[in-house]
Amino acid sequence: MFESAEIGHSISKESYREQVPLLREALLDVQYDLKEKADFPVLILIHGFDGAGRGETMNLINEWLDPRLIDTVAFASANDEERARPWMWRYWQKLPAKGRIGMFFGSYYSDALFDRVYDEIDHDAFDREIFDIMRLERMISQDGALILKFWFHLTKDKQRKRLKELEKDPATRWRVTEDDKANMERYDTIRKYGEHMIRLTNTAYAPWIVVDGEDANFRSLTVGQTILKAIRNRINQHGTAVDVSEAPPLLAPIDDKVILDTLQLDQKMDKAEYKTRLAELQGRLSKLTRDERFKNHSLVLAFEGNDAAGKGGTIRRITQALDARSYRVVPVAAPTEEERVKPWLWRFWRQVPGKGGITIFDRTWYGRVLVERVEGFAQEHDWMRAYYEINDFEHQLSENGAVVLKFWLAISNEEQMARFKLREETGFKRFKITEEDWRNREKWNAYKLAVSDMVDRTSTSKVPWTLVEANNKYYARIKVLSTICAALEARLGA
Amino acid sequence: MFESAEIGHSISKESYREQVPLLREALLDVQYDLKEKADFPVLILIHGFDGAGRGETMNLINEWLDPRLIDTVAFASANDEERARPWMWRYWQKLPAKGRIGMFFGSYYSDALFDRVYDEIDHDAFDREIFDIMRLERMISQDGALILKFWFHLTKDKQRKRLKELEKDPATRWRVTEDDKANMERYDTIRKYGEHMIRLTNTAYAPWIVVDGEDANFRSLTVGQTILKAIRNRINQHGTAVDVSEAPPLLAPIDDKVILDTLQLDQKMDKAEYKTRLAELQGRLSKLTRDERFKNHSLVLAFEGNDAAGKGGTIRRITQALDARSYRVVPVAAPTEEERVKPWLWRFWRQVPGKGGITIFDRTWYGRVLVERVEGFAQEHDWMRAYYEINDFEHQLSENGAVVLKFWLAISNEEQMARFKLREETGFKRFKITEEDWRNREKWNAYKLAVSDMVDRTSTSKVPWTLVEANNKYYARIKVLSTICAALEARLGA
Repeated sequence: MFESAEIGHSISKESYREQVPLLREALLDVQYDLKEKADFPVLILIHGFDGAGRGETMNLINEWLDPRLIDTVAFASANDEERARPWMWRYWQKLPAKGRIGMFFGSYYSDALFDRVYDEIDHDAFDREIFDIMRLERMISQDGALILKFWFHLTKDKQRKRLKELEKDPATRWRVTEDDKANMERYDTIRKYGEHMIRLTNTAYAPWIVVDGEDANFRSLTVGQTILKAIRNRINQHGTAVDVSEAPPLLAPIDDKVILDTLQLDQKMDKAEYKTRLAELQGRLSKLTRDERFKNHSLVLAFEGNDAAGKGGTIRRITQALDARSYRVVPVAAPTEEERVKPWLWRFWRQVPGKGGITIFDRTWYGRVLVERVEGFAQEHDWMRAYYEINDFEHQLSENGAVVLKFWLAISNEEQMARFKLREETGFKRFKITEEDWRNREKWNAYKLAVSDMVDRTSTSKVPWTLVEANNKYYARIKVLSTICAALEARLGA
Repeated sequence: MFESAEIGHSISKESYREQVPLLREALLDVQYDLKEKADFPVLILIHGFDGAGRGETMNLINEWLDPRLIDTVAFASANDEERARPWMWRYWQKLPAKGRIGMFFGSYYSDALFDRVYDEIDHDAFDREIFDIMRLERMISQDGALILKFWFHLTKDKQRKRLKELEKDPATRWRVTEDDKANMERYDTIRKYGEHMIRLTNTAYAPWIVVDGEDANFRSLTVGQTILKAIRNRINQHGTAVDVSEAPPLLAPIDDKVILDTLQLDQKMDKAEYKTRLAELQGRLSKLTRDERFKNHSLVLAFEGNDAAGKGGTIRRITQALDARSYRVVPVAAPTEEERVKPWLWRFWRQVPGKGGITIFDRTWYGRVLVERVEGFAQEHDWMRAYYEINDFEHQLSENGAVVLKFWLAISNEEQMARFKLREETGFKRFKITEEDWRNREKWNAYKLAVSDMVDRTSTSKVPWTLVEANNKYYARIKVLSTICAALEARLGA
């Protein structure tokens, strides 16, 4: 969920100065259109880590937009009057009117999250409050509201650094409260429960937007552009019925930097080291999957990656270590006639392993948000909701004891070209390269963005994506195998 | 939830014989249209009490329709293969294909309900499973599925009688299992948790249809007509995007008998008895609302009824017993400009009393499903989802400690006419009768149906409707006051 917000985004001072006047003008325009022409309210929720710029952003929005048309509400602990009523009551009171923007600093999400973080409620009660929230958001979104939920993110180290800076300066020291310090101590817990909450409530009609909070310029422009785009899109749909499954206002990162850009694809590993480590890892994997404790678990491996990135070769190095009776490799192509008449996830549900079983998918359900998105085989609102559906599917597997691991094998554009050419020259590999492969290369950037969105929206602590630098096949195989072994050991307590 | 299924519906043999051939023909037609023209699956879930005709209905549907296009699945306890996978897995496997009808006898709802009834899971875990179910149904409905969920109902006495009959006859004795007997012992528990489950999952895109299971003719025709209407409606929307907020296929009771018809409106009470009981009840109410224990609760009274049914007079008899500082009477008219720009429930949320407080609504949020429905002020999909939203609102109040009571004051058409005329003749009451009141009379039957749907969909054990026979004002006032006193005594343990 937070991956792309941790790769270090930034916008230069010059670029920021250039963009802000245009953005402000556009925001004011859209705000007046909202007031004059539109009959829906906009609800903006501000959440995230202390020190990630939540307060600054709130002030900035009030500065950039016409504050007379914004209702900003900072929620602290409930007062007596509020505590005497249902927990959602105080938020209900403050919902914005049609034509206006309501901005909540801290909302029902804070109540649920911090009650859980400070152990005042257990996990089932936490889920019940999340369920309450989902019903509320569904209701007000069906009533027409546009809901945007921002999570301002910082890594643990950066949060520590940021709060130290604030404390050192006498002018800002007052801003670091005892609560902030207590929350800092609980960074990992907030992150864990925050992710859980975001996963369950990241719906198409009320999406979360995770923003890297480190660089103020990047953060401010991202928020401004997102609000602008979302309101403008909704106004353009004016007159059409509110479709709660409509697409969220996804914004490509404004600095064009995506998570795949951060990978060092050229890793080194020589054949000798590879052979030694391969033997060792295959031995470990073999032992782990034959372990008595594995009988209460299962293993689901999902492989995606660029064409010619080496998925097949990697999968073979895994299966060499497995008992043939325990695993199945499922190659995923376009759905068959039988599969096409069922819900789209059905063909994957069927292949879910039982306890003690292993299923390896060579291409996966992520086709929905990769090829089907990029090629336009699925409609936007269908692949948009797929993120939610995929998360739900994978977490049901995980809750049931499955270790679910997802690998993206990444090679560079040049490396792919070299491999394609080699395949064309090598007779017995020629079948592997088709017209389509060449066409896909033209969509390199569209795929890059799709992969980035996929990782942001479906990588969770329980079911993470592993991005594999795969220009060197040896390195890639070893990284995959050791990730699998480590995950199994952690789950089995081996 | 179950009120209308307990008033004794029936269809005569003659009428049944007349209707069935037409219905069967229409069902076969729509089934072939589904296969040929439509690209969505139909999922029918069969639930309810033992002995209420679930099995018979399943067989009948297979007889009336073309069984080659129906996949009927009876789910028993999970087998080993199924238990080794997520609990929803076995249902996923069996989802019907597009163009086909899948009928589940026992489904994920049975797992959740009976785990709760037999105390294998606690209430939070029950809610979590319901949450799982809602996400699944939302997903498959967004994927295009038409979902119909039948709850076959019987009162406790009638269930007991029915199972005895089956046991007495050697030909049917085998059908009464030990499980049935164990379930019969737990009738109240099944009813309580069943109602909770139905309330939370009775969505516009996957509605529950509660069917009186006593009379086989009524039951069979209701199910057949509902399936027919629902599939036909969906096919007619062919080509339009699936709107998950679309209206459920509500069917007026096929025997035209609604719950208001069962009231004996002419109750007797003379002035002397009225005076004695009024004094006694007002004393009790006064004491109860001044009780120390009431400070942890609150009281919400909602009054609806026919025009001139005596709401105002009844409310005055209540407030006479209350401390003026503790209560507020909220007369509800058309929303103001300020209210119109907020979510429709907002103006009622605002008036929610705090602990120790009392709010009396003279007309209520039910206007959404009464006048706004009948007069067409709200669109169908808006008032349809209002049932769910109202239930949610009221149950949040109830969870928070409020005693919520809803009264429908019912008078006969003739009594209303007499009161209207009297008002016209009595100078100081003339303001009370308007053109609109006369117009409303013309819609008497439309209102009757709206009231019936309202009671069916929003009366729950925690937040019940009380239907008040109000041709005699004395009787009505006493019934209301004693209902309030009894509910307060129960909640306060007084």
